[in-house]
Amino acid sequence: MLKLPRFRAAAVQASPVYLNPSATADKAASLVREAATNGAKLVAFPEVFVPGYPYWNWITDPVTGSAWFEKLAKTSVLVPGPEVDVVRKAARDTGCYVVLGVNERTTVSLGAIYNTLVFIGPDGALLGKHRKLVPTWAEKLTWTGGDGSSLRVYDTEIGRLGGLACGENTNTLARFALLGQGELVHVASYISLPVAPPDYDMAEAIKLRAIAHSFEGKIFTIVSCSTVSEEIITAMEAVVPDARARLQRKSSAFSGIIGPDGRVAGDALIDDEGIVYADIDLDRCIQPKQMHDIVGHYNRFDIFDLRVNRRPLAPLDLADGQGEAAEQGGFTPIPLRSE
Amino acid sequence: MLKLPRFRAAAVQASPVYLNPSATADKAASLVREAATNGAKLVAFPEVFVPGYPYWNWITDPVTGSAWFEKLAKTSVLVPGPEVDVVRKAARDTGCYVVLGVNERTTVSLGAIYNTLVFIGPDGALLGKHRKLVPTWAEKLTWTGGDGSSLRVYDTEIGRLGGLACGENTNTLARFALLGQGELVHVASYISLPVAPPDYDMAEAIKLRAIAHSFEGKIFTIVSCSTVSEEIITAMEAVVPDARARLQRKSSAFSGIIGPDGRVAGDALIDDEGIVYADIDLDRCIQPKQMHDIVGHYNRFDIFDLRVNRRPLAPLDLADGQGEAAEQGGFTPIPLRSE
Amino acid sequence: MLKLPRFRAAAVQASPVYLNPSATADKAASLVREAATNGAKLVAFPEVFVPGYPYWNWITDPVTGSAWFEKLAKTSVLVPGPEVDVVRKAARDTGCYVVLGVNERTTVSLGAIYNTLVFIGPDGALLGKHRKLVPTWAEKLTWTGGDGSSLRVYDTEIGRLGGLACGENTNTLARFALLGQGELVHVASYISLPVAPPDYDMAEAIKLRAIAHSFEGKIFTIVSCSTVSEEIITAMEAVVPDARARLQRKSSAFSGIIGPDGRVAGDALIDDEGIVYADIDLDRCIQPKQMHDIVGHYNRFDIFDLRVNRRPLAPLDLADGQGEAAEQGGFTPIPLRSE
Amino acid sequence: MLKLPRFRAAAVQASPVYLNPSATADKAASLVREAATNGAKLVAFPEVFVPGYPYWNWITDPVTGSAWFEKLAKTSVLVPGPEVDVVRKAARDTGCYVVLGVNERTTVSLGAIYNTLVFIGPDGALLGKHRKLVPTWAEKLTWTGGDGSSLRVYDTEIGRLGGLACGENTNTLARFALLGQGELVHVASYISLPVAPPDYDMAEAIKLRAIAHSFEGKIFTIVSCSTVSEEIITAMEAVVPDARARLQRKSSAFSGIIGPDGRVAGDALIDDEGIVYADIDLDRCIQPKQMHDIVGHYNRFDIFDLRVNRRPLAPLDLADGQGEAAEQGGFTPIPLRSE
Amino acid sequence: MLKLPRFRAAAVQASPVYLNPSATADKAASLVREAATNGAKLVAFPEVFVPGYPYWNWITDPVTGSAWFEKLAKTSVLVPGPEVDVVRKAARDTGCYVVLGVNERTTVSLGAIYNTLVFIGPDGALLGKHRKLVPTWAEKLTWTGGDGSSLRVYDTEIGRLGGLACGENTNTLARFALLGQGELVHVASYISLPVAPPDYDMAEAIKLRAIAHSFEGKIFTIVSCSTVSEEIITAMEAVVPDARARLQRKSSAFSGIIGPDGRVAGDALIDDEGIVYADIDLDRCIQPKQMHDIVGHYNRFDIFDLRVNRRPLAPLDLADGQGEAAEQGGFTPIPLRSE
Amino acid sequence: MLKLPRFRAAAVQASPVYLNPSATADKAASLVREAATNGAKLVAFPEVFVPGYPYWNWITDPVTGSAWFEKLAKTSVLVPGPEVDVVRKAARDTGCYVVLGVNERTTVSLGAIYNTLVFIGPDGALLGKHRKLVPTWAEKLTWTGGDGSSLRVYDTEIGRLGGLACGENTNTLARFALLGQGELVHVASYISLPVAPPDYDMAEAIKLRAIAHSFEGKIFTIVSCSTVSEEIITAMEAVVPDARARLQRKSSAFSGIIGPDGRVAGDALIDDEGIVYADIDLDRCIQPKQMHDIVGHYNRFDIFDLRVNRRPLAPLDLADGQGEAAEQGGFTPIPLRSE
Repeated sequence: MLKLPRFRAAAVQASPVYLNPSATADKAASLVREAATNGAKLVAFPEVFVPGYPYWNWITDPVTGSAWFEKLAKTSVLVPGPEVDVVRKAARDTGCYVVLGVNERTTVSLGAIYNTLVFIGPDGALLGKHRKLVPTWAEKLTWTGGDGSSLRVYDTEIGRLGGLACGENTNTLARFALLGQGELVHVASYISLPVAPPDYDMAEAIKLRAIAHSFEGKIFTIVSCSTVSEEIITAMEAVVPDARARLQRKSSAFSGIIGPDGRVAGDALIDDEGIVYADIDLDRCIQPKQMHDIVGHYNRFDIFDLRVNRRPLAPLDLADGQGEAAEQGGFTPIPLRSE
Repeated sequence: MLKLPRFRAAAVQASPVYLNPSATADKAASLVREAATNGAKLVAFPEVFVPGYPYWNWITDPVTGSAWFEKLAKTSVLVPGPEVDVVRKAARDTGCYVVLGVNERTTVSLGAIYNTLVFIGPDGALLGKHRKLVPTWAEKLTWTGGDGSSLRVYDTEIGRLGGLACGENTNTLARFALLGQGELVHVASYISLPVAPPDYDMAEAIKLRAIAHSFEGKIFTIVSCSTVSEEIITAMEAVVPDARARLQRKSSAFSGIIGPDGRVAGDALIDDEGIVYADIDLDRCIQPKQMHDIVGHYNRFDIFDLRVNRRPLAPLDLADGQGEAAEQGGFTPIPLRSE
Repeated sequence: MLKLPRFRAAAVQASPVYLNPSATADKAASLVREAATNGAKLVAFPEVFVPGYPYWNWITDPVTGSAWFEKLAKTSVLVPGPEVDVVRKAARDTGCYVVLGVNERTTVSLGAIYNTLVFIGPDGALLGKHRKLVPTWAEKLTWTGGDGSSLRVYDTEIGRLGGLACGENTNTLARFALLGQGELVHVASYISLPVAPPDYDMAEAIKLRAIAHSFEGKIFTIVSCSTVSEEIITAMEAVVPDARARLQRKSSAFSGIIGPDGRVAGDALIDDEGIVYADIDLDRCIQPKQMHDIVGHYNRFDIFDLRVNRRPLAPLDLADGQGEAAEQGGFTPIPLRSE
Repeated sequence: MLKLPRFRAAAVQASPVYLNPSATADKAASLVREAATNGAKLVAFPEVFVPGYPYWNWITDPVTGSAWFEKLAKTSVLVPGPEVDVVRKAARDTGCYVVLGVNERTTVSLGAIYNTLVFIGPDGALLGKHRKLVPTWAEKLTWTGGDGSSLRVYDTEIGRLGGLACGENTNTLARFALLGQGELVHVASYISLPVAPPDYDMAEAIKLRAIAHSFEGKIFTIVSCSTVSEEIITAMEAVVPDARARLQRKSSAFSGIIGPDGRVAGDALIDDEGIVYADIDLDRCIQPKQMHDIVGHYNRFDIFDLRVNRRPLAPLDLADGQGEAAEQGGFTPIPLRSE
Repeated sequence: MLKLPRFRAAAVQASPVYLNPSATADKAASLVREAATNGAKLVAFPEVFVPGYPYWNWITDPVTGSAWFEKLAKTSVLVPGPEVDVVRKAARDTGCYVVLGVNERTTVSLGAIYNTLVFIGPDGALLGKHRKLVPTWAEKLTWTGGDGSSLRVYDTEIGRLGGLACGENTNTLARFALLGQGELVHVASYISLPVAPPDYDMAEAIKLRAIAHSFEGKIFTIVSCSTVSEEIITAMEAVVPDARARLQRKSSAFSGIIGPDGRVAGDALIDDEGIVYADIDLDRCIQPKQMHDIVGHYNRFDIFDLRVNRRPLAPLDLADGQGEAAEQGGFTPIPLRSE
Repeated sequence: MLKLPRFRAAAVQASPVYLNPSATADKAASLVREAATNGAKLVAFPEVFVPGYPYWNWITDPVTGSAWFEKLAKTSVLVPGPEVDVVRKAARDTGCYVVLGVNERTTVSLGAIYNTLVFIGPDGALLGKHRKLVPTWAEKLTWTGGDGSSLRVYDTEIGRLGGLACGENTNTLARFALLGQGELVHVASYISLPVAPPDYDMAEAIKLRAIAHSFEGKIFTIVSCSTVSEEIITAMEAVVPDARARLQRKSSAFSGIIGPDGRVAGDALIDDEGIVYADIDLDRCIQPKQMHDIVGHYNRFDIFDLRVNRRPLAPLDLADGQGEAAEQGGFTPIPLRSE
């Protein structure tokens, strides 16, 4: 008889050690251990937690922001690479699944920085990564878009696990591409966005997207959002004098867990740093599907034929199978190097 | 320079004259005239308003419900047909767009009843119709699913107009199929569902879907929901003695208008009969698209290739072009017969 | 509200005046009047009633049968033509629908004889005709197969009316081609076949096919079968001496009416000459469709795409629209010439 | 010279160990061994034998039935999977072909349960599976419809073998889709339906469909039907108090073998548990085809062009070939893992 | 009962009064009267009988032949016109059908001469005309090809009547275009061709084509051929000195009647002038069709779709319907002017 | 410069080892070797040589003939298949083209037997096959008609090669369908028909058709006809006592070669068993075309538009490309399996 997992999920709401990847990796590892102590089996981190979000794009002009682009290019990390390994070790030590947002650089181009979610298994293995498909508005000044090869759901002991970054959770088709692979646990990683237009309530927007995804798919969504630290504000004041005012706006961050009925399950946090937890029982995903199962009986795949191109896109397609294409492709879990 | 329409929209929350199609058509015509008097240019009606919703499916077993199926089969209407013509005349007299839910029968099979939304122009022309693709749960005991031929957005003077029935508003792909045709004004027609499982808050669920659709698409959604009249309760007491208790549950109906920011615009009604209005300014759909335009710059159609099969499905494809296939196909507006 | 017709149907079980078309037409007209007197609104006649069935094909070798082929070629009738007009007048006089089987000749070839069902309206109009698609076994020695242009269902005051000849009622696809046009009343015209192989019980086979069609389609089937008269036996004794023995076998003819539940409705006749009646209430076709409606909710037209080629097939397609192609095509009802 | 197979077929009429998939698989394996001992080379099982039929859908309202939906979702089986392997081993040990009905779950959605027929070869290989296309009436509350990919006939040592579940045997086009692939041995799997409407004689309806299919196609049909055990009645009494009365109705199950002449061949069973046998000689399929061969000379494929869409329908079409699409597709026989 | 005509047919084998149209018309009228006296109801004349065949094309070079082209252009006739009227009067006087070959000129161009068969009814009416589609080899120096508008079969009291000129009887498709209109009596008009290549036996070739057409179509063919008179030889000696030798070759003309079995019916003539007769019984066309009826049961019009373009081809298509197109089109019988 | 082939053609006039396919295949292989020894490069065999012609259809009634239908169904062969392979090996060993008539069965229906011509290349490859389109008269009791997919002309080293079976050589349109593909060498395969009506001279009819085809098309026709052996007569005496008298009629078989002038080239045989030869020089096809080239200058394709439907007709069109449709389609040459 089918036995679905029950487990505790944790969503971290925190700020990085800004633009310091190894210190941020250490902070992340520490937060994994804390969450595990509290019973968590899955720990979700904010978008580009390592080593932080490029707020300068929103508060100054692109030319002025250029020097900061270079800083971020240099403090971004390789995946796999030593900074991520620190978190993988914490995952292995605690037996936790971890989803971690990083700025990812590559060996192919110094100008290509990806907004990447890293999926880590409880044995420290690198399950895969997802590169945000389209950066939002001002973010386009920094990040390169990913391709479809990373739109994957992982079959884990805690249920089929997927994730998207920030505004991707608004993309109807990206969301369905995960639901259609049997996703039951969705991680939505965000950054706090106090710099959004005045009538845009970021905390509400984050919550609303999670509710929509959970309710449509009859699944659990773990939302993790970063916060804006004093350190970040100070750094941005070096960019524009009024940065503090623009970065201290309230209701800019939300972390929490949403259930298959579209309601908050467990705790939730707005703006403050902390870890929220919820106990997840995947059995709760069955009965709502009797009403509307959009990847099953309540859809019409004779009418809707969604083709997802998961071919890696790369500068070159080298006939001997080497190069970026191979690097970006769907890899098999990479075990953590023993120390 | 682009001038987007501003207009007043009305959402009717009302019950039909139960299982009486001509009396219900008269009531609908009367409501159109009332809304027009109050300045409305678009009047949205509940799902299967003519001549009402098959509640018996939810409160008794299928075999017991069978005699009621026959009643509904006989009181369903043809489109076009005399009952719809009554409402078309009201639309022409008042210059209103009308979206009306009906139980539609066909000449091909006595067993096929469709849950159909009828789109009517301000000249009384029949713009088109949409047959609900998949009935929800107990509704499968009554309705036949439609095909993709009716997934259309109409280019009107009040903006590109589309609509879906009830649970279809949960179907990620059906929603995107309308957004992808440039939909700006979405009609979501519902029925009150007090008979849902105990932990299902229908009013909340209706609202949540509308918010999700408006926010993802940056459009306006007009939600119209039916109510449960004393007449319906009495009729259902003939089915099961405890019908009253099951049909009087609160928070089972919601009507209102949601804006492109995912918030309620204008009035909203829960459970009570009435008409709600909102002034719609389509200019408000532009700025939110700078952040996330999922049918434009914020999507990746190199990755997501959604093919919508709009071929009519019919028992036969007669090579001389007659039969049901022609009936179901995408028709050109049908003018109202002058009286 | 949908009002479905109730009416009395009559199935004639009789023999023709053998190979005498005008006398047989008179007999048919007389039987129409008798049935109408007994309240019938639809009168079904056997296959090739005018002027009879070519039994010689089954009881002697083809070369010996050749002279009889010539006799039949000469006594076959044109449609329209004077013999059919006699029956059309009876239909008009009594206000009955009539389905009449005839051997039809054409002006194009002396070798082409069709096994044709003629559909006549209560005003004497010729609604249409159906030419049997494939003759059965020994019948291939006589008849030319028709084309798809005659696979039509007629929308009449007594419900959608269709018909097939004899073994066509075994042809799954031919049957569905009528059901898919909304057929509710099916006429199955047969001949008595005492000359079938010894283990073939013709009456059982006739009944079985009608049950299958009615039950699958949830419709009424009117079965009319011819009988073998002493006159026919005598004629066939001129072909082979032992004709009498082969033509007197029992359980070779069945006439009767089958309801949508697959059971006999009203009277039934085996072998004997007579008229059987049943009172038909099309309301009975609705409820069984809730279980299995193969032209509605209980089919999958995304999977099964049946294309029926109704293009007339003719020796020539004359681009100026004259010739046989026009003759064979789907004609509009031809009114009976007033006398 | 063509040598057609002769063999003994067995049709099991039995009830499962209700909602216990592994115990039911053991019972099925035991019945295979018993039938093989009696000379059977083909053993047909009822529809959804593993682990039983959702009777609650017919005797209570959908909301009340919801908890039972969850039970069935959890006790449904994967194909291939451990429960089916138990029966495959019995097939291999005895050298029998086995057709087994199961409730099949998938890894894509917790809400999708399929009514699946599993075809097993005498070497234990999984030949293929067929998912019922449209659930009947109340069954729509439980099952998701399959797609056309599973409409296959298997070329075996005992002749071309196909099968359909329950009401599908009423679907004219589904039946022809198998006949048109050369089917000679058809398995029709059913469940006992004492809960049908009062005027519906399930045993008669089962038999009638089998006769129609055998007679039209000139083939053998093996009908296997489940029974309602005391255990099932007791379980359903927990749903509604009067379950016993509704589940004990007579003439609700029929198992037996029908020959190409539309007559019962060998034994037949009504309602009681047991195994019926018949000796099948495929030579008997030849002569009846001289009269009416609807997949050969007695059809008109210039007129009737039936296109069967066998493309698997899945939530996603992943261009790199992973996901549900591949799972549903036409697989090559899967050998049984050796123990 | 179908009564097919019996009648006597006559085939004229004669030479014209060379290049003298009115004298030749008188000769033709006289021959009609002679044949009628002998009981003929149909009289067939040779190709271009009025006023003769352009032998110069075969025996000298085109430039030398040019003056003779002018002679023929001037002695060709209009249809209708006074020369043809002479023959129409003889037809009316005797009640005979007549098929007459003429050189036809037009009012549109002095260069256009057609090789035309004129069909005349027993009331003197002009039934129609056929212009030879393609002149044979050297004839291309003289005649313009006709169009499809004249490929007609006439429904007469002596059966469906058609005709082709000379080599057209070799054209498989032209022949079938007449058979496909129900032709039963075919007139094949020829000229004597002593100037053919040495190994070409003209009388044999004529006969062979008639046998092929009659046998394939199961019809009667009336072959009429001209002879080479002393007058013609003398005329041609003015063209080339050795004309006599080339024009006196034997076995160059054949006239006779061929039956539906491909055998000569009645008399036949080789080279000599005269009239041959045969008694035609169209009943003989029926039985052979039971074996092979290529316009009926022994063809496959789902495979062979012969489209005959009968649109008149003319220099202009004048929108008011005047001009050559109208002249060439399918006219209704033109009654003979009373004198 | 165009070099047309010269070669020796052989036409076999022989009887099969009746209803013994493998012995007949051996006999055919032996005859190929004999003809090759005598210089033949093309060997034509009679219609349905393997394993013989169903004479019973002509001499007894259809029901009595039924047991013999079953015998033929079982002794018919698959193409490709072991019996045809025996002849293919002989073709490869001798370097001969072979055209062989067989009774072909299929895997789709036990009732479908085709009258098939098999075309074999000098390397033993299967070039293609042609299934007779319409069986003649009494033959309709046995064979299913083929479709247009097999109307092909093969481009070989001995010129463009086509073929038709028996009465098809009367079908004007079928003949033209080959001529229109450039046919230069036509094989006309026949059976001896002593059982034809008394006034039907089979040998004459065979010859006449070949002359017509050769003369109209200006090509060579190789006629091969079977004979009636003592073995066949004895077998048929088991059907009717007077079989011997009906099967011994003279002038029932003709084999020989006809040239483009419509005359016999080389030897000819009437009734007796043997092989006839002719030396074929395709250069002889050129000059006659100057006069009448019905696939070139002597036709009018603006008027005659013959569309040949070569789509395979099959019970099903399976969208994944499997099934009979593929089997019947135009295949590429199938090489002979090495032994």
